[in-house]
Amino acid sequence: MAGERVLIFDTTLRDGEQSPGISLNTAEKLEIAHQLARLGVDVIEAGFPIASPGDFEAVQAIAREVEGPVIAGLARAHTADVERAAAAVRDAARPRVHTFISTSDIHIEHQLRSTREDVKGQARAAVAHAKSLVDDVEFSPMDATRADVEFTAEVLQIALDEGATTINIPDTVGYAMPHEYAAFLARLYELVPDLRNAVLSVHCHDDLGLAVANSFAGVQAGARQVECAINGIGERAGNASLEEIVMLLHTRAADVGLQTGVNTREIARTSRLVSRLTGYPVQPNKAIVGRNAFAHESGIHQDGVLKERSTYEIMDATTVGLEGNDIVLGKHSGRHALKQALEDLGLEIDGHALNQAFKRFKDIADKKKQVTAMDLEALVTDELREELRAYTLEWFEVAAASRRPPHARVGVKTPEGEVVQGDFTGDGPVDAVFRAINAATGRDARLREFRVDSVTGGQDALGEASVVLEVAGMSASGQGVSTDVIEAAALAYVRALSNADLRGRRRAAEADAVAAATELSATP
Amino acid sequence: MAGERVLIFDTTLRDGEQSPGISLNTAEKLEIAHQLARLGVDVIEAGFPIASPGDFEAVQAIAREVEGPVIAGLARAHTADVERAAAAVRDAARPRVHTFISTSDIHIEHQLRSTREDVKGQARAAVAHAKSLVDDVEFSPMDATRADVEFTAEVLQIALDEGATTINIPDTVGYAMPHEYAAFLARLYELVPDLRNAVLSVHCHDDLGLAVANSFAGVQAGARQVECAINGIGERAGNASLEEIVMLLHTRAADVGLQTGVNTREIARTSRLVSRLTGYPVQPNKAIVGRNAFAHESGIHQDGVLKERSTYEIMDATTVGLEGNDIVLGKHSGRHALKQALEDLGLEIDGHALNQAFKRFKDIADKKKQVTAMDLEALVTDELREELRAYTLEWFEVAAASRRPPHARVGVKTPEGEVVQGDFTGDGPVDAVFRAINAATGRDARLREFRVDSVTGGQDALGEASVVLEVAGMSASGQGVSTDVIEAAALAYVRALSNADLRGRRRAAEADAVAAATELSATP
Repeated sequence: MAGERVLIFDTTLRDGEQSPGISLNTAEKLEIAHQLARLGVDVIEAGFPIASPGDFEAVQAIAREVEGPVIAGLARAHTADVERAAAAVRDAARPRVHTFISTSDIHIEHQLRSTREDVKGQARAAVAHAKSLVDDVEFSPMDATRADVEFTAEVLQIALDEGATTINIPDTVGYAMPHEYAAFLARLYELVPDLRNAVLSVHCHDDLGLAVANSFAGVQAGARQVECAINGIGERAGNASLEEIVMLLHTRAADVGLQTGVNTREIARTSRLVSRLTGYPVQPNKAIVGRNAFAHESGIHQDGVLKERSTYEIMDATTVGLEGNDIVLGKHSGRHALKQALEDLGLEIDGHALNQAFKRFKDIADKKKQVTAMDLEALVTDELREELRAYTLEWFEVAAASRRPPHARVGVKTPEGEVVQGDFTGDGPVDAVFRAINAATGRDARLREFRVDSVTGGQDALGEASVVLEVAGMSASGQGVSTDVIEAAALAYVRALSNADLRGRRRAAEADAVAAATELSATP
Repeated sequence: MAGERVLIFDTTLRDGEQSPGISLNTAEKLEIAHQLARLGVDVIEAGFPIASPGDFEAVQAIAREVEGPVIAGLARAHTADVERAAAAVRDAARPRVHTFISTSDIHIEHQLRSTREDVKGQARAAVAHAKSLVDDVEFSPMDATRADVEFTAEVLQIALDEGATTINIPDTVGYAMPHEYAAFLARLYELVPDLRNAVLSVHCHDDLGLAVANSFAGVQAGARQVECAINGIGERAGNASLEEIVMLLHTRAADVGLQTGVNTREIARTSRLVSRLTGYPVQPNKAIVGRNAFAHESGIHQDGVLKERSTYEIMDATTVGLEGNDIVLGKHSGRHALKQALEDLGLEIDGHALNQAFKRFKDIADKKKQVTAMDLEALVTDELREELRAYTLEWFEVAAASRRPPHARVGVKTPEGEVVQGDFTGDGPVDAVFRAINAATGRDARLREFRVDSVTGGQDALGEASVVLEVAGMSASGQGVSTDVIEAAALAYVRALSNADLRGRRRAAEADAVAAATELSATP
């Protein structure tokens, strides 16, 4: 399947991580970035380094460790942002700074409280500054699809003159229609002939369900980079789904004549990893990666597929890595077998992490006859969540029955190493455990969401619990894995409490950054 | 907002209900159909009457009770199908028969094992027969987007000659690209000038993430009916999302110049009802109806929205009914207040159902300070699930702790009215309860999926459990609502067991229908 290459720019760790309730630590971001490299994306947007020290640290760690893709850091068109982004990505083999400023009047007037002339000046200064620090500079006119095309063209010409090598046209609010977006890009090519010497990129949001279609219309209009996220996560309704745009180009390659560098067989696993670490479920009817995307239910369709698969199938489930993995371990499997199985999954863990994973594996294998590849993924991912100095669940007890209020007792180790106890009589066993944890820790956390999913089928399946709570105005999420739903819930709750602290610190840093932006954008 | 009208044809109850694990009973289908009428859809495709006696009964009940929309029944191009569909919808004020046959060679050769000439004959006979029974006849050339356009045009001319009033062009396998689909429709208009006298309809699947974009491209090419489903459910990756296509036409009305008859403020509630009854969750980043579709997380976006909403918002959450509902009842609220609150929600229940709902409401209000509109929806929906002669959970007891295997005891009333008991020591409390239910009932059910979601936020929120299990090769789902997660899980499991029987009978009926089809399609 030859054809011109379309670059896949993954923003799961930047725009995706901006989704409410997601708060990934550095170890989790690294694990996702390594998997994105295995998936074969061309660019990883690893974060927004000025947003918080944690963001900076994660981008830097990815730049240092993850080989293959270009590593990009996001920066507003401000000196401090650009410097911070460049410093974070500096150690990558191929670092990129991605800087942006709005060109729509609605943003210029109401958010930036500035003028078109000022925006041109800021764009010029930011791109020039970025170019003095790294070779590879991407520029985005934010909210472009609601901006005046002539003015946007002027700003793009400036960015190109200052050395931008990629020009990205964001449909920031998910407002564009495919024909409109394609026409906008075509007009930019007319107004800015130099655009032909840069890579044109698309960045579309799914507010009206058109993110993939708009991205594809952009590609047909000449764009050769698509910004997208695993499972389509991101602000509001999210970004274009990486898996959908990739499988569209792959499945229709004979007609479209373009290709990507993605190894499609890594798609399903990447989707599961991102879903698990972010706590964002994938709905069963989600294209490509939903549980039912390849299922046939009606008698007529089943009859057709039995006679000839192509009657109702345009893609093969093995192409996206949904089938064909038959690793199965049991309680007699040793450490070496576990390490080998993990390596087959592309998960390289050693030392303490391997010891921990082996201990967890043995606990699970005692309860569960067969430990599958998907169970191993869940366990290893669960291990990544352990943070130093966080709350830890030590033990719990619950009694529940249909006509008596359930009672729970828990022991939780605090960041200071002390084991505190609490108990509570609640409306349900999970509620009782959560409130007992509040009582033990003295934190006034309020549950916003709670969900449990089974990792695989089967009566003895692992349960993955996901909790979103609010503490002191901050929202934070936590996940936990166990064959016991209540234990999984308690683990998730305690981790969410731990993440709340992290999130509190990060929000404070972001508020400072926004305050700084307001000051800067008021300066001519 | 004037402009030409686009008809919304909802297929949640037909194509949507074909999703794996969904098995709605007649009461549930009726509740969804009533809500679709409140939502203001133009056509409800209520089911596939020949598929099973249950399908027939549900379509007939909807045709008799639900006022407003056209009620359609699906039929293959066979005499028996058409007669069964016409009989099921006959009592509707405006009945429609929707008949279909494939025009793609891949389907004709491999599935129908027939010839193009035979397909023309079957289409002619089916439309003529349907027209003799009802005025309103829709015809679909299945898998049209992979079919020869000239041959499809010939078949459409035949259908129009025989009196079809709506011609629907399905992208059955979700293969088309927007420009391709629009070109296909444009070519059909050229080849079949009579198509201008019928309503052209689009029916797109989301396998490549393009269902809404393809539907919209079809509308721009002249189609004036869109077939779609709530939450985008349906075979595999599902159909075009009703809420996305409607809000696209609504939000971009000034530029597109088309309108629908949908009351957008009913969208969120319809989405919740369908999600709850089908057990299909909506992912947080789903456009329009996802929990985060209107949330702003990054500091920059929040700053913009605080200064001026339109900087980052193209739609208002109240437009889709996500906010503005502030019904709150408490433990002192009486039966009248409950009935009034339910009526405000558009839920009319009386007699036994009201008594049951009031009893459930009081139980919940004892445990939960505030009972909100969303809680009421969940409770009333939960009541709809009660079926006569099904298993019923009478009581349960569980003890769980971190270092001891949990033990459960349950009492279950059988369809014969006997209360049977069982107990089990399992890996987790939910597992122990499920296996105790198996032990009590003597059924060898295997758990395939298990999920718990909270209905609203808050420590005392109701939990909704969803279970998919397999019994004797059949899959069946059940849902349960309670403030106690284990009770919700046990209710869901027992209901899934009950549904398994129903599903077993239905599958047998479908298998007969397929066998009949194979025989019929082998006949010239």
